Amino acid sequence: MGGDHGPSTVIPGAELALRRHPDLRFVLFGDEAVARSLLDQAPRLKQQSVFHHCELSVRMDDKPSQALRQGRYRSSMWRTLEAVKSGEADVAVSAGNTGALMAMAKFCLRTMANIERPAIAAIWPTLRGESIVLDVGATIGADAQQLIDFSVMGAAMARALFHIERPTVGLLNIGVEEVKGQDEIREAGRLLRVAETQGLDYHGFVEGDDLGKGTVDVVVTEGFTGNVALKTAEGTARQIASYLRAAMERTLLAKLGYLLAKSAFQRLRDKMDPSKVNGGVFLGLNGIVIKSHGGTDAEGIAAAIDLAYAMAKNGLRDKIERDLNGFHLRISDDVAADESEKSA
Amino acid sequence: MGGDHGPSTVIPGAELALRRHPDLRFVLFGDEAVARSLLDQAPRLKQQSVFHHCELSVRMDDKPSQALRQGRYRSSMWRTLEAVKSGEADVAVSAGNTGALMAMAKFCLRTMANIERPAIAAIWPTLRGESIVLDVGATIGADAQQLIDFSVMGAAMARALFHIERPTVGLLNIGVEEVKGQDEIREAGRLLRVAETQGLDYHGFVEGDDLGKGTVDVVVTEGFTGNVALKTAEGTARQIASYLRAAMERTLLAKLGYLLAKSAFQRLRDKMDPSKVNGGVFLGLNGIVIKSHGGTDAEGIAAAIDLAYAMAKNGLRDKIERDLNGFHLRISDDVAADESEKSA
Repeated sequence: MGGDHGPSTVIPGAELALRRHPDLRFVLFGDEAVARSLLDQAPRLKQQSVFHHCELSVRMDDKPSQALRQGRYRSSMWRTLEAVKSGEADVAVSAGNTGALMAMAKFCLRTMANIERPAIAAIWPTLRGESIVLDVGATIGADAQQLIDFSVMGAAMARALFHIERPTVGLLNIGVEEVKGQDEIREAGRLLRVAETQGLDYHGFVEGDDLGKGTVDVVVTEGFTGNVALKTAEGTARQIASYLRAAMERTLLAKLGYLLAKSAFQRLRDKMDPSKVNGGVFLGLNGIVIKSHGGTDAEGIAAAIDLAYAMAKNGLRDKIERDLNGFHLRISDDVAADESEKSA
Repeated sequence: MGGDHGPSTVIPGAELALRRHPDLRFVLFGDEAVARSLLDQAPRLKQQSVFHHCELSVRMDDKPSQALRQGRYRSSMWRTLEAVKSGEADVAVSAGNTGALMAMAKFCLRTMANIERPAIAAIWPTLRGESIVLDVGATIGADAQQLIDFSVMGAAMARALFHIERPTVGLLNIGVEEVKGQDEIREAGRLLRVAETQGLDYHGFVEGDDLGKGTVDVVVTEGFTGNVALKTAEGTARQIASYLRAAMERTLLAKLGYLLAKSAFQRLRDKMDPSKVNGGVFLGLNGIVIKSHGGTDAEGIAAAIDLAYAMAKNGLRDKIERDLNGFHLRISDDVAADESEKSA
């Protein structure tokens, strides 16, 4: 029921994804009266899905606390998450209200053992392919331990998604030296360096312009900065697209040139199309939740489902759990060794 | 002496700026042996400038503390700042080491009364023209009072530069509701709203994608987020330029289209050219300092000098001082009124 267009994009999107991955199965939650006729137009999906009617859906402008109060147990959003909890579904996908989805996911699925806070990971298109950036807005601020947790979870996701044995991880920082306040980032960097881990290759600090370059596979930052960076990049891309459009419409020659180079522009548009890379992944919960952009089309919904499919197929949740446990053990060993050295 | 190319871009850049503003006068600091022959090729500048030979120049990779220890009193950077302090110059312009320049500027010029920390303001090209964004990296973190100081200083700069009577000011925030940790931003917003001021029009919160849209004239944030946002936008612009280049070189038709639309592409390149908008402005010190990009060309140096010229002509420093005093008075009145109400 979520997103700006509700079932009218979600259902065709699921049908699209099913064509690409015929072994997908869907558990759908929503208002049957609205969805029924749309499902009739999606014969493949209709056959490969179970539909659960829900009397209530969370609105895009509900406050998280309000959504939780009113929609717990009975809203389509809650019941989608519950399907992951019960094991009926492997992944939850929603285009609904982000704040409400995160609040409900925390309440319903709970954070993993040793994880204080979940993170939202975004897939970032780069000159070298794709990177994972987290946290892009689950929570503001992060201490060294949380930045390390984000690093381990992001690396597990990169392994599941990009099939890289030891993904490179960078901590987002600013280049000005001897500026105060980066203590938690420095401390996280120090710990990542000492705790040699097979699961990730710690690269060091990266800066804002390394995001687009694709300097590392995983960029780690706290949620405020990550969210601003993501929206700034999206805004800049739209700004340049608008300049380009204006420039190409200005003269007859430019218009003609545009026509001739149309396929090249189409390629560029595909590269910049936000619906091609769609889906924020909630990490650190006992279950994988994918948040699609609310304003996306059926193609975007399908992209979010593709992502969910890849995550489930590659056992992301188990990978994260195993890596986190291994890393926490290693860190406590190191700290213990460090302290016994000091007391000796 | 600063920047990646030293006097070989700084001197032609100053000559360029002088052509545009014939009433400019320069006080130059550097190694006379290096600069002399370059000055001979810049006859206008040679006539309109005084040259002070300096035995030492700060290197681009010096740490700020090192630069300060070795270069105080005698480096070309220090003496440039001192020229502003003594009144020999109205503005200092440098393409040198940012960290060293900020450390020396704080030490030499000192912060204005009531200002705890300076900020670096950047000019941000937007769909509606240009905005001012600060702080883009002077210091990490900012409390409510500092965010307010940045707002007042940014608005004064917008008035001096864009000639807008009451510039609109937005506080950079993230859209996720009920996320904790934004207390200082909320408090700054509350104070900006209650303290009705003639100098600025407080708009409210803005997000990362409002930067490119130009939603407000002045965007205020703390230095870590501002620096990441600035570099992310620059990186995204370079990334898209690279996609565009690759797309246009792929087929014969695209190449032909590119040739026909060449002037349109040139317009786009001009729009995206970082040297056209060059210069971070240090605000909150007893004197205006402009930091040019280190990697820029003569055109970029000229743009930084244009900015310095506009600032000096429009009395930026006095405007800031007056606005800050007025605003601090008003805030303390409000707080006093608030407290007497409570105790009544």
